[in-house]
Amino acid sequence: MNTREEAVALDSADPLAALRDEFALPTAAIYLDGNSLGVAPAAAAQRAQTVIAAEWGEGLIRSWNSAGWFALPRRLGNKLAPLIGANENEVVVTDTISVNLFKLLSAALRLQDSRDPKRRLIVSERSNFPTDLYIAQGLIEQLDRGYELRLIDDPSELPAALGDDTAVVMITHVNYRTGYMHDMPALTKLIHEKGALALWDLAHSAGAVPVDLNGANADYAVGCTYKYLNGGPGSPAFVWVAERHQNAFSQPLSGWWGHRAPFEMNPTYRPDDGVGRFLCGTQPMVSMALVECGLDVFLQTDMQAIRKKSLALTDLFIELVESRCKEFPLTLVTPREHAKRGSHASFEHPNGYEVMQALIARGVIGDYREPHVLRFGFTPLYTRYVDVWDAVETLRDVLANETWRAPEFATRGAVT
Amino acid sequence: MNTREEAVALDSADPLAALRDEFALPTAAIYLDGNSLGVAPAAAAQRAQTVIAAEWGEGLIRSWNSAGWFALPRRLGNKLAPLIGANENEVVVTDTISVNLFKLLSAALRLQDSRDPKRRLIVSERSNFPTDLYIAQGLIEQLDRGYELRLIDDPSELPAALGDDTAVVMITHVNYRTGYMHDMPALTKLIHEKGALALWDLAHSAGAVPVDLNGANADYAVGCTYKYLNGGPGSPAFVWVAERHQNAFSQPLSGWWGHRAPFEMNPTYRPDDGVGRFLCGTQPMVSMALVECGLDVFLQTDMQAIRKKSLALTDLFIELVESRCKEFPLTLVTPREHAKRGSHASFEHPNGYEVMQALIARGVIGDYREPHVLRFGFTPLYTRYVDVWDAVETLRDVLANETWRAPEFATRGAVT
Repeated sequence: MNTREEAVALDSADPLAALRDEFALPTAAIYLDGNSLGVAPAAAAQRAQTVIAAEWGEGLIRSWNSAGWFALPRRLGNKLAPLIGANENEVVVTDTISVNLFKLLSAALRLQDSRDPKRRLIVSERSNFPTDLYIAQGLIEQLDRGYELRLIDDPSELPAALGDDTAVVMITHVNYRTGYMHDMPALTKLIHEKGALALWDLAHSAGAVPVDLNGANADYAVGCTYKYLNGGPGSPAFVWVAERHQNAFSQPLSGWWGHRAPFEMNPTYRPDDGVGRFLCGTQPMVSMALVECGLDVFLQTDMQAIRKKSLALTDLFIELVESRCKEFPLTLVTPREHAKRGSHASFEHPNGYEVMQALIARGVIGDYREPHVLRFGFTPLYTRYVDVWDAVETLRDVLANETWRAPEFATRGAVT
Repeated sequence: MNTREEAVALDSADPLAALRDEFALPTAAIYLDGNSLGVAPAAAAQRAQTVIAAEWGEGLIRSWNSAGWFALPRRLGNKLAPLIGANENEVVVTDTISVNLFKLLSAALRLQDSRDPKRRLIVSERSNFPTDLYIAQGLIEQLDRGYELRLIDDPSELPAALGDDTAVVMITHVNYRTGYMHDMPALTKLIHEKGALALWDLAHSAGAVPVDLNGANADYAVGCTYKYLNGGPGSPAFVWVAERHQNAFSQPLSGWWGHRAPFEMNPTYRPDDGVGRFLCGTQPMVSMALVECGLDVFLQTDMQAIRKKSLALTDLFIELVESRCKEFPLTLVTPREHAKRGSHASFEHPNGYEVMQALIARGVIGDYREPHVLRFGFTPLYTRYVDVWDAVETLRDVLANETWRAPEFATRGAVT
């Protein structure tokens, strides 16, 4: 592509273009960080008012029933299910990814222990999002029963890493840093052939790429609602367990929301049948209610249309960076191959941190990930082709004029 | 008290009366269930709009820093601290009571194991709120190392239940059903004398009664922000650890928010110093932000003033029920002794469930707890003496006319 007009023409022909109106987009910014925090659905502000003024303010305690609060984790789970190839009653929206991973890893180790106690190994990738590894470390240390976390450095090492000592393989489907996407059906098949269980983290997949958990015969999954699903800052995560594992599913975070009859107030825990037992404590209803606003937008399209535009956006971004910024030291770290690419694109630059701060100051909002990575997320529901063009032009300008060398862009603060 | 006018007079002289304006109270209802879900602060609706439109909608990812989202669990913890006798940097607002109990029990057992491995007993009360017991059961089963949960049936059994095998005593300060309040300093002293650690659940205490965790020399505590603190439905819980335990504190829910440097993205978990290590995953910011609206009201008064009115309200309620409804089979289960009473009052009635449904239909909202208990919460920030009078008159009417016998009041649904 050589001109902005070509990008404008692509937007005119975009079948998803109208969905942009479903969001309250930031003014004066090109937002390419929906892979970290999705934008606010236009419906969210009004939904919050309804929850606060009518459901909380007027309905009060009655709203646990009358406004469906108590059922919300299951109802939202069912609404999310089609986006990840899950069935009814396999998903609940609850807690955080970290807490849900603890539940799933605990259940997986326990199941394997009952089948074959020599399986003491959790396999993952060193490049996995750190909280996944931290949770595995915390669980292993707590159990203190000879479990081990083995980290591979490259997906190609996976076959050799799996053996008759492997209990569970925990992989993030799309890597948070590079955008590398694993072949879920093929890896799950391999993992099962080795007698292990497959636990998928869909943080950068749900709403970003087509996922078919049941089609892949996966065992467990967690994911995020505040990235591509636009659920709001820190909105509750989701947890999926294949139906075949549900009634054997046992996890130590056995809070009262997972009880078969929570209001009998019985002193002994008896897990609910099915998805109910993935729940633990009382959920934050205002944040949770807003998750539905994001999910509702997905009902107007499908993941195939989203994927098509996502690949077109990342293709265009990579093409433009490599053609229009070719004199600068930018190295693509995201796979070129469509089958291995999620919905973001990352480039390394020796001064990645400063360059990203300079871009943000110019209203192009991506983010930075250690080390050296400029990360740009493409969210087909609201990202336009012209945003891609304009972002790359701004990047070119920041690099050409070396505006990133200004001292204010070197200061490091907490970022997420 | 013999007339409604006397109640009105008490309201006129009430130094807390003006604080009622800080809340968006339900129309046409006398709300006596703030011990289950507190009412909406008047500031909550506007705060939600700011979070959604400005912080999320415009600020987006930048708001993790610029709007202080990332620091919010600590900042709210510090704001809450004075209400429970905690110091700065001892409390964080995060997750749920159930999840936080799991962290604390895990840390307590681990600490005791390092000191004296024969301490394998968790002591609690059979009448404790069930989720506390369920979490202990889940942890014990997971550890599978000979830990045991011993339940006592009466507080008087506690001294005999404690021995050199006791690791931790987990007690809810104010019982959710009866309103019985334990003597925290005395019990903590006893628990320490027996070499055990004291873990207090403040679900029905924080914002309800004066609590002095450090004064009592307690070890650990959890509590709720959606009851007396008016944080919103299911708003995040809080967790407190005495400063002396913080740097030895180790818990298995070691998510990235508890890491010393979460944005270094290091694959190995290293816990933050101090309170940071009680955190786990990304928190629900819209729900969490609203917690502050509730806490801000407490800045206008103090727990001594609240306690004084709380006792006056529960005294009046007990007096009026016992005088004006004396011909009906109502039995007080809440202690008469002030030192043993929290901020709710409960009466047993053989048809408690139906009577409560009939009361709710008449706009007097308390709740029902198995078995047979009519529970009424008194929240001095917004409950008036005249509400007490009117509620008892309605109760008398429901009982005298036996309106609770109508078939629609016998149907049981999920309640919380």
